[in-house]
Amino acid sequence: MTSSENTGPVESAESSASLPLGVTLPQGFLAASTTAGIKPSGNSDMALVVNQGPRFDAAAVFTRNRVVAAPVKVSRAALVEGEPNQIKAVVFNAGNANACNGAQGMADAKKMAEGTAIALGLASHEIAVCSTGLIGELMPMDKVHGGIEKLAKNLGADPSFGAGAATAIMTTDTLPKQTAVHGEGWTIGGMGKGVGMMAPSLATMLVSLTTDAIASPAALDEALRKACDVTFNTLDVDGSTSTNDTVIIQANGASGVEPTQEELDEAVLKACADLANQLQADAEGVTKRVKITVKGTVSDEQALNAARTLGRDNLFKCAMFGSDPNWGRVLAAVGMADADMDPDNISVFFNDQPVCVESTGAPGAREVDLSGADIDVLVDLGTSGNGTAFVRTTDLSHEYVEINSAYSS
Amino acid sequence: MTSSENTGPVESAESSASLPLGVTLPQGFLAASTTAGIKPSGNSDMALVVNQGPRFDAAAVFTRNRVVAAPVKVSRAALVEGEPNQIKAVVFNAGNANACNGAQGMADAKKMAEGTAIALGLASHEIAVCSTGLIGELMPMDKVHGGIEKLAKNLGADPSFGAGAATAIMTTDTLPKQTAVHGEGWTIGGMGKGVGMMAPSLATMLVSLTTDAIASPAALDEALRKACDVTFNTLDVDGSTSTNDTVIIQANGASGVEPTQEELDEAVLKACADLANQLQADAEGVTKRVKITVKGTVSDEQALNAARTLGRDNLFKCAMFGSDPNWGRVLAAVGMADADMDPDNISVFFNDQPVCVESTGAPGAREVDLSGADIDVLVDLGTSGNGTAFVRTTDLSHEYVEINSAYSS
Repeated sequence: MTSSENTGPVESAESSASLPLGVTLPQGFLAASTTAGIKPSGNSDMALVVNQGPRFDAAAVFTRNRVVAAPVKVSRAALVEGEPNQIKAVVFNAGNANACNGAQGMADAKKMAEGTAIALGLASHEIAVCSTGLIGELMPMDKVHGGIEKLAKNLGADPSFGAGAATAIMTTDTLPKQTAVHGEGWTIGGMGKGVGMMAPSLATMLVSLTTDAIASPAALDEALRKACDVTFNTLDVDGSTSTNDTVIIQANGASGVEPTQEELDEAVLKACADLANQLQADAEGVTKRVKITVKGTVSDEQALNAARTLGRDNLFKCAMFGSDPNWGRVLAAVGMADADMDPDNISVFFNDQPVCVESTGAPGAREVDLSGADIDVLVDLGTSGNGTAFVRTTDLSHEYVEINSAYSS
Repeated sequence: MTSSENTGPVESAESSASLPLGVTLPQGFLAASTTAGIKPSGNSDMALVVNQGPRFDAAAVFTRNRVVAAPVKVSRAALVEGEPNQIKAVVFNAGNANACNGAQGMADAKKMAEGTAIALGLASHEIAVCSTGLIGELMPMDKVHGGIEKLAKNLGADPSFGAGAATAIMTTDTLPKQTAVHGEGWTIGGMGKGVGMMAPSLATMLVSLTTDAIASPAALDEALRKACDVTFNTLDVDGSTSTNDTVIIQANGASGVEPTQEELDEAVLKACADLANQLQADAEGVTKRVKITVKGTVSDEQALNAARTLGRDNLFKCAMFGSDPNWGRVLAAVGMADADMDPDNISVFFNDQPVCVESTGAPGAREVDLSGADIDVLVDLGTSGNGTAFVRTTDLSHEYVEINSAYSS
């Protein structure tokens, strides 16, 4: 699948393998990857993204979970310590989340930042740390330190270095995810892994974006939050949110071009949307990509509540797995949502075909073809309000159960 | 499985097959069952429970879903029409929920009540209607009327009549569910099907309780609501709530004994707890019964929020299916709950063994044996509050996905 097969505002994002992609595409960014030995598989498991300047502006969005992994705490602190919102490098590992490891976990995450800083000749507070993998296992710090040494010696700007980094941060991902968006004289590159709001706790969403545009931390923060709201935050596979989710953007101004806020917003949105599409397509055990749109509510917030409630309903998700146009489950699910509705005036469309009108089955509803990989669901809750929202989710498959019942054992 | 293998306050409920059980056990109640032809399987699919008096007091608890099936509306109305809270019979069908069928559905549900009233020489408002099955299919009213005729002619007080009724209301249930609780000189009988808050929308929870005690509608209502709160409302398999859920109790005073409110409360609780245990054990695709207790919160409500959040987390449920003591998923799940907590002071116990202390793994945590059918999970959110609550859920298995992806197609 290429992202161009998905709906959504990502038409001009370049995720085709034939074009250069990734975090090293913008000027002045280097990347590295290595095999530190953290993953039992023996696959590459550490990565580094280094900003060569001249500017070191950064912004980040972190998990909303109250249980927060140590590397998230270290990265959050880095963004406020020293000169605020300045980050010069991000170090990644996969195979161990360094979450729920108490004081030792915090000490280890700080040592990851310190070790990276020493290897690069930087200060600890200039380093962000991203970890993903099993929760509750102490980090193998000897391996991590060895990995950092190798990363610092193997930095490069060629797209292959970015691709190597995108591969090293994978856990249950089956494919590396990279993106690129070109502005006029400036570029955004990016990589991602796992799935965010749809996140299995062992498949934390980590996203690293780089740009050679001139952009203040405030501009980056605004663009990133707006983009996350309608991309990663609309992904919802199982209602779970990881302890480690991190989306970070670094800007070095190397292009000498300062886009307007609108231009920056649009480009960051494209990059995030492209990565979100790739994350959804590679979600654990997915056989269907389901976009749920809700309208006819008093507010967008209520529409989002209803869309999320439906997107998390296992009965609905099982029906999608079975290509079953079981619109009754849609009504049963949204009927429990925290949203105003007219229970006698709910409409449901599957792939643009009406299956339920005025809360009653439409002719031919059971014969609607849902055998394709993409399913569009539109629910009108029947009030006169103009609220609308969408989420993207997946089906609930045998493979999902298999992956998630056997991962750690 | 007998209910005595379960934890919970049901020690003296008698659900063993060797003792008489069911809705006809109390004096003055008759039951019938028949095959009307609604179920494609050709199994029995209609049932009737008739109260012979001398009193006709009743109380009911209905689904909290905003999308409410026509029979629920008819039953609700019956409880307020005529003499309030007086019901003389309940007619049941399985194989068709008569939900989301618009005006025709309402007309059909009313005709079910009218037909039953005529066959029994009663008034329509003395009849409650309970339907379960597929949503959005019109009721085959010819078959229903034929079924009602047969039901009215085949009423009996022998336990076999109650057992027949318990069998006729089954959908994806694999076993009929009946109970009996004996007071001093009075009795409660009952039957149930499906699973309530854990409800697949095609496996609506229906529960019918009967008693020969003297009990006012207010006393019945109080006892029923208190019992539901800690039994059916603590069951949560997939967060779904059906359009048809109904729990109804009828009391005829035939024993001449009027229990105290406390005695009534206790007996109704036992009956509901016993049926809830049976529902949980027979939930779709269940291989594990999981009891989740949360404490260390500011209020019981917050504890319940956290327990529900964990009980609905698919990653946790998959881990239970895999007998995987993956406590990291417990922390990741409760970290998203609407409850105050100390994120650095969360404790988790699996089957009374500590697996996480102060939000960090306990020695031997990965080796805890979860291979049995019952798993107890205790989570302490680490505040100084005394809030506590529990829910009962199940694992997420291949069989669940199979049943729910193939049911209607």
